[in-house]
Amino acid sequence: MDSLSLQDPLFATYAIAASLMILKAVGMSWLTVVRMMQAKGGFRSPEDLRKTPLNPEPNAKQLEPDERVERIRRIHLNDLENLPFFLAAGFLYVLTSPPLLLAQVLLYGYVVSRFLHFAAYLSARTHDTRATLWTVGSLIIVFMTCRVLVAALIQ
Amino acid sequence: MDSLSLQDPLFATYAIAASLMILKAVGMSWLTVVRMMQAKGGFRSPEDLRKTPLNPEPNAKQLEPDERVERIRRIHLNDLENLPFFLAAGFLYVLTSPPLLLAQVLLYGYVVSRFLHFAAYLSARTHDTRATLWTVGSLIIVFMTCRVLVAALIQ
Amino acid sequence: MDSLSLQDPLFATYAIAASLMILKAVGMSWLTVVRMMQAKGGFRSPEDLRKTPLNPEPNAKQLEPDERVERIRRIHLNDLENLPFFLAAGFLYVLTSPPLLLAQVLLYGYVVSRFLHFAAYLSARTHDTRATLWTVGSLIIVFMTCRVLVAALIQ
Repeated sequence: MDSLSLQDPLFATYAIAASLMILKAVGMSWLTVVRMMQAKGGFRSPEDLRKTPLNPEPNAKQLEPDERVERIRRIHLNDLENLPFFLAAGFLYVLTSPPLLLAQVLLYGYVVSRFLHFAAYLSARTHDTRATLWTVGSLIIVFMTCRVLVAALIQ
Repeated sequence: MDSLSLQDPLFATYAIAASLMILKAVGMSWLTVVRMMQAKGGFRSPEDLRKTPLNPEPNAKQLEPDERVERIRRIHLNDLENLPFFLAAGFLYVLTSPPLLLAQVLLYGYVVSRFLHFAAYLSARTHDTRATLWTVGSLIIVFMTCRVLVAALIQ
Repeated sequence: MDSLSLQDPLFATYAIAASLMILKAVGMSWLTVVRMMQAKGGFRSPEDLRKTPLNPEPNAKQLEPDERVERIRRIHLNDLENLPFFLAAGFLYVLTSPPLLLAQVLLYGYVVSRFLHFAAYLSARTHDTRATLWTVGSLIIVFMTCRVLVAALIQ
């Protein structure tokens, strides 16, 4: 692939998968906000205990960790450990001109694995379920990256 | 836009905004270093208590959290949650060939929102101020990403 | 450089460096898994104490921090603070059409600095060693980013 055109089915596949993952990551920030407002707590900065329109009745307990908020923070951290590298790996991978079907399986497969990982983590499924879903996504990143590495080395 | 040329005003706009955000993120690492040296503490690894030229008088309290250092770490984490996704979203967004003025408003607007967010967080303004500035930036990412998604889906 | 071709030596240099850094970051996740399995602990979520095939004998101590696991998490966080910005900065930098040799020194130099940083952190060398290696990489990112900024501003 030579041009980065959203009219190109291969690049469009990447753009769709990347967009969904960006929205997913940003969504974790918003979900943290929602849960902090529900819990009226789980804050982290001393100044968050000041009386403001959004926090009319501050008290010291608001700085203690709240498990419902911490759960989203853990999911978010897992995204930070994975999604930026997926975004870069997927971009370089489509530049190797892979077959469209294979690219769709890998890129959309990654998206599905991450949404399932989110569902499993949010609903506190067992570690084994969560780990399996993470593993699928991680192996997709590794596969795409190795493909890029080989293509660049044998140029 | 078909070519990724820094001579293209649209891509140059992205490159300027992206560069400023990269320098901002890297700057947080340096600011953490500066504050750890000022506080002579806020370290995290056991080996940081060894006597070295940079730490001539180690003591166990250096591993305790130091609020001035932790504040920068919180700002940095907020950058990690936002900037990589801005970098990816902005890149894909300019590929949709948006009007130059709109792209400038969004991309430079994001940069301004993040520098103001930094100022508000560093000076411990109320949560409401910080949250408002973060929201502006987050909505810009969401808008650009949705635009990319639509463009890729209706190719 | 106008085309993003892996046949282009400049872009191939970026692709190789970027691939190695992506694999490095993903490798930290896997190393965390390995060390959690060795320690049979260092977990973070309450549900990780459920009895499963991967955790046949759960006990409450498994949620306590384990230094061998935490060390990898600190290295991983350092990657998250650096690698996404290297990936973006390096990409934009090769678009400024730098001399191939300079690009190789900077991009491969960064890769080497990060692998040495990993070795120094893993083996708990002094803070000074680790800081020196981190500084080399950080200055490479700053240099490349400033070059992009200048190129985009004087378009």
